[in-house]
Amino acid sequence: MTIEVGILGATGMVGQQFIALLAKHPWFKVTWLGASERSAGKAFRDAAAWRLPTPLPDEIAALTVEQASEAAGTAPKLVFSGLDSSVAGEIEGAFAKAGHIIVSNSRNYRMDADVPLLIPEVNADHLALLKAQEARGWKGRIITNPNCVVVVYAMALAPLRQFGLKTSIITTLQAISGAGYPGVPSWDILANVIPFIGGGEEEKIETETNKILGALKNGAVENHPLTVSAAVTRVPVHNGHTGSIAVSLEQRPDAAAIIAAWNGFRGKPQALDLPSAPKQPIVYLTEPNRPQPALDANRDGGMTVTVGRLRRCPVLDYKFVALGHNTIRGAAGAAILNAELMHREGLL
Amino acid sequence: MTIEVGILGATGMVGQQFIALLAKHPWFKVTWLGASERSAGKAFRDAAAWRLPTPLPDEIAALTVEQASEAAGTAPKLVFSGLDSSVAGEIEGAFAKAGHIIVSNSRNYRMDADVPLLIPEVNADHLALLKAQEARGWKGRIITNPNCVVVVYAMALAPLRQFGLKTSIITTLQAISGAGYPGVPSWDILANVIPFIGGGEEEKIETETNKILGALKNGAVENHPLTVSAAVTRVPVHNGHTGSIAVSLEQRPDAAAIIAAWNGFRGKPQALDLPSAPKQPIVYLTEPNRPQPALDANRDGGMTVTVGRLRRCPVLDYKFVALGHNTIRGAAGAAILNAELMHREGLL
Amino acid sequence: MTIEVGILGATGMVGQQFIALLAKHPWFKVTWLGASERSAGKAFRDAAAWRLPTPLPDEIAALTVEQASEAAGTAPKLVFSGLDSSVAGEIEGAFAKAGHIIVSNSRNYRMDADVPLLIPEVNADHLALLKAQEARGWKGRIITNPNCVVVVYAMALAPLRQFGLKTSIITTLQAISGAGYPGVPSWDILANVIPFIGGGEEEKIETETNKILGALKNGAVENHPLTVSAAVTRVPVHNGHTGSIAVSLEQRPDAAAIIAAWNGFRGKPQALDLPSAPKQPIVYLTEPNRPQPALDANRDGGMTVTVGRLRRCPVLDYKFVALGHNTIRGAAGAAILNAELMHREGLL
Amino acid sequence: MTIEVGILGATGMVGQQFIALLAKHPWFKVTWLGASERSAGKAFRDAAAWRLPTPLPDEIAALTVEQASEAAGTAPKLVFSGLDSSVAGEIEGAFAKAGHIIVSNSRNYRMDADVPLLIPEVNADHLALLKAQEARGWKGRIITNPNCVVVVYAMALAPLRQFGLKTSIITTLQAISGAGYPGVPSWDILANVIPFIGGGEEEKIETETNKILGALKNGAVENHPLTVSAAVTRVPVHNGHTGSIAVSLEQRPDAAAIIAAWNGFRGKPQALDLPSAPKQPIVYLTEPNRPQPALDANRDGGMTVTVGRLRRCPVLDYKFVALGHNTIRGAAGAAILNAELMHREGLL
Repeated sequence: MTIEVGILGATGMVGQQFIALLAKHPWFKVTWLGASERSAGKAFRDAAAWRLPTPLPDEIAALTVEQASEAAGTAPKLVFSGLDSSVAGEIEGAFAKAGHIIVSNSRNYRMDADVPLLIPEVNADHLALLKAQEARGWKGRIITNPNCVVVVYAMALAPLRQFGLKTSIITTLQAISGAGYPGVPSWDILANVIPFIGGGEEEKIETETNKILGALKNGAVENHPLTVSAAVTRVPVHNGHTGSIAVSLEQRPDAAAIIAAWNGFRGKPQALDLPSAPKQPIVYLTEPNRPQPALDANRDGGMTVTVGRLRRCPVLDYKFVALGHNTIRGAAGAAILNAELMHREGLL
Repeated sequence: MTIEVGILGATGMVGQQFIALLAKHPWFKVTWLGASERSAGKAFRDAAAWRLPTPLPDEIAALTVEQASEAAGTAPKLVFSGLDSSVAGEIEGAFAKAGHIIVSNSRNYRMDADVPLLIPEVNADHLALLKAQEARGWKGRIITNPNCVVVVYAMALAPLRQFGLKTSIITTLQAISGAGYPGVPSWDILANVIPFIGGGEEEKIETETNKILGALKNGAVENHPLTVSAAVTRVPVHNGHTGSIAVSLEQRPDAAAIIAAWNGFRGKPQALDLPSAPKQPIVYLTEPNRPQPALDANRDGGMTVTVGRLRRCPVLDYKFVALGHNTIRGAAGAAILNAELMHREGLL
Repeated sequence: MTIEVGILGATGMVGQQFIALLAKHPWFKVTWLGASERSAGKAFRDAAAWRLPTPLPDEIAALTVEQASEAAGTAPKLVFSGLDSSVAGEIEGAFAKAGHIIVSNSRNYRMDADVPLLIPEVNADHLALLKAQEARGWKGRIITNPNCVVVVYAMALAPLRQFGLKTSIITTLQAISGAGYPGVPSWDILANVIPFIGGGEEEKIETETNKILGALKNGAVENHPLTVSAAVTRVPVHNGHTGSIAVSLEQRPDAAAIIAAWNGFRGKPQALDLPSAPKQPIVYLTEPNRPQPALDANRDGGMTVTVGRLRRCPVLDYKFVALGHNTIRGAAGAAILNAELMHREGLL
Repeated sequence: MTIEVGILGATGMVGQQFIALLAKHPWFKVTWLGASERSAGKAFRDAAAWRLPTPLPDEIAALTVEQASEAAGTAPKLVFSGLDSSVAGEIEGAFAKAGHIIVSNSRNYRMDADVPLLIPEVNADHLALLKAQEARGWKGRIITNPNCVVVVYAMALAPLRQFGLKTSIITTLQAISGAGYPGVPSWDILANVIPFIGGGEEEKIETETNKILGALKNGAVENHPLTVSAAVTRVPVHNGHTGSIAVSLEQRPDAAAIIAAWNGFRGKPQALDLPSAPKQPIVYLTEPNRPQPALDANRDGGMTVTVGRLRRCPVLDYKFVALGHNTIRGAAGAAILNAELMHREGLL
């Protein structure tokens, strides 16, 4: 059984990561690529330089790129989207209306009440929101994964909900791949730090997290009451967003209980043994200087979130460090895991 | 009038920065260098490779390096110390006993009750502690400057004391020069982040800050009651420690009042027009993506602390970013400013 | 006496370097800025983010940017150009026709027979070519400086002409600032090397060098017969182009003679004591691991070329390493030195 | 069938790469680790921090490290060595005397007349030298692989021997992992280039290449008459040595013939289908800006040499760029391939 899939925004950083991750996927086979007018009509290999260290499969290289804005209805039913948010709203909407299942990494629909903002290990039950999309008159559906920081952050926080999550402050150190391509000019970031990321990055972290951690009640998501404060920075790292995180917890668990909660955390992807599911979604590293993006971002295919340095926080209760691969666990891999879950739930 | 000075730990990263900063100093002239046994007896140019982009002065290059551990009493009265903390305790003590004024960047004596931990703009009155050192039987004295993060942090916090500083959380992104030389192996930090710095870095930030911001009462420092939580990281930046900082304040000033407090902050170095004093010790940058180490660390000779991105914090009250040059404002320049203040106060 | 000057391409990497270098110039005062339509009509501070670590002077920040393509005849007589080569041909020509003296860093006119391609220390006499520009019907003139690699390379080779320069092979390691802004995407160059630079970089090195080293005969330049082979690479360095160079020489001087030729090399800028002239244009470094961009590119204000590692070459005769600051000695500083020479020669 | 193997220098950069590459090897199983006195007696996980992004296998982590200098005779017969050259001479000699087959990455024995300096694709017949080691009174043998640059360089040159290789000039851009650990201090190489590598790097390239490319005549290697000139630089890249290479060839093949020679090049490892053999040892990349270390060093498990940018050289005949993974193809992987060949040739 092979399911044909398309990729919207195929030439971009996340689009290329989709191609790389799907190259040997047991279920999904990329047969359709969509991008901007500039790329349309060209073979993929001529439309964009391949920028990943894993090889571009020949059969993808030869695919002709379609013009995304004109292609609703012509692609396979299942379409992954790595479109830039400047165009994702319109194009994804048109595709959903035309009957496609859009598994999107873009931010445009994430906070809509009838759109699941999914991390399969954390809130698989939010898939129930999809029904409400009928009211839009769409033949298809849109499902989204969170911002690349939020995936890491929400996964690290999810096992702590049982301890009464009250407040959290996070400072991020984010990789350049998160800005897409060409993204951050080298002059700006080489041997430097930029304490700012545009596009409402901090606001996304301060809102998406609450939706994901929220509970489904009467067919709607009730946001988790956690108060989040985010400060973001860009650092000269290829892949892997690091978060320096502090949390206050109503109950005061000891450190061992927290570490056990992380290491023991499992979700539907593990129960269903989904192809892209990491065996252990969250791994606590005991070395005093970990996690590090260069050493830990690629763990278990880039789908594991690593956590370390749990210690008491004099202001809140605990502080720790969390890390995840931003274009895999935080983008393309997240969307693929979403699609795998939907397939196994009979939603494709 | 020229005051001859010595440098302990002259071959190290901070030692070389002392040499560079003193090369054209109007008052101080380096005539004596001390280092480890390995360097002793050699001309400075043969004892250590010069690693700064500013040229090594010929007259310093030709100085013979003395063995620091054997040299108490033989150096000029005023001695700057950039010694490693593994040896600074013993050597600086011996020098102080022998009558030297040790202006030290090392951590060993910083928290002693009778040792000033000084940022001249912030707590110049703490110099009064020096008298108490008589009780040690020292003919000389030891004065210290804070850890390289603490200088930046305490300067940014000092103007906020008027608003009732209660708690603060800081995550740092620290430059490699802070680890000395050879310091961090390139394999570990190139295109990477290390969420850990040894030597009790976080504890230093959580204790030194309170001493500096404390008030002198009855000849002793009463620590400021601020609660600090620090999380430190190393990033691939040459110079300039960045802090992502959140604070809670008893009074709720508006942002304009905080910015005015920073921009208007002045201290004794400015009043006395000390040679190394920055005209404006704290500068608030209005661009949304500043301060950045590559662009802002060298401001006003590396002695200015730049601050930016002040905004509301959903968890505490405000968050912002602060930056300072760690081997100038945070080490060698800090010590030189201390010595300049002592000179003008008649303490040399 | 102050000479008002304009800057074409003021918002770019080289344009900003012009502004920085002219901020305290004793003769030239920037009073006019030209850039693309996108910037026209805005105050400079709003037209472009300032990207250099030295501060943007307030009076420049407040200047209104003119539209370069429409401004011929409206700027001061002396105009520096850092325009991109895609537009420099037309705009510089229009300015020259309208009576401006264009001191250009662009490649468009460099190889024209009637245009001086100048390194003042090397071929100041090539200024005599300017007369021939009358035949173009221009009221003004165009003078150019070489490609940023060629400045460094031709300076290092110039003192070797006396030994009978026959062939030379150069591999470059070029800084990212040479690509302008935004220039090289960080994803491409962080912790990487790109063995290619577009725009005919290797061809420029293989042709401009011969014109510069050529002799003026009967009012025309006779190219030097040296055969050059260039291979270029981009490396993650901010500023400073490094060349690994091999040469064959008809006479076989010993190494000491070559080093003496470099260290003793002086030209008209030194004789005339021009404001931007380095005291010693070429400095041979004796340390075995120098020159290095991070340590040596800024020597003497970035106007000195440093050379090192002279040793026998088993294939040609000698090999060595040369380094220069690409946006100062290799671009903006080069053009300013050209203008200083013209001023002292009465050509402005 | 499993062959137990030991690793000398197990804690170093190359030693760790041995462990990583052998983790899933079909023939060889690591059962013994040797290192310096400092590590001896400790479990491997306590003796050294694991510094590679692939996970340290648990069974290796638990192995007790032996003191290399005292262990001759106690290890398995087959021992890989990544020892530092300061100690490799003595220790490897003692092991060979005691009957071990030492497959070494160290330089100490490389140029000895009776020691094969092997690249299995290039000079597999040099294994015949091993017999001559009997004269040393060794019960075992020593076989070596070349310097990490030389592997890449000699592989790129080997297919050109048919065209009459005469002279070659190479400038290298070498990765930091080539310096071992801690290796190059980050202060020296971050955003910088160092035009020097110690330990006789250039001399090694200028001599080892000729031995490898030489022909076996009457039981001895007759060095290839190629004249080589090498200039080496260190660049801030993790893995992958890049060479900018020019060659003169007696016959003047056209570019297509050279590219065909590279792409068609095969050797014994391919004929024998050795486990670590790349399918195509040399791959010519047609993109104008390749090969690049970040994109190409890991090709086919890091065992492929990639070549690109072939073009005419005005001084010699052709120039091109070659790249290989220095700690895999240029060190640990090279040694493992040597051992695989020996096994299949019945020499273990």
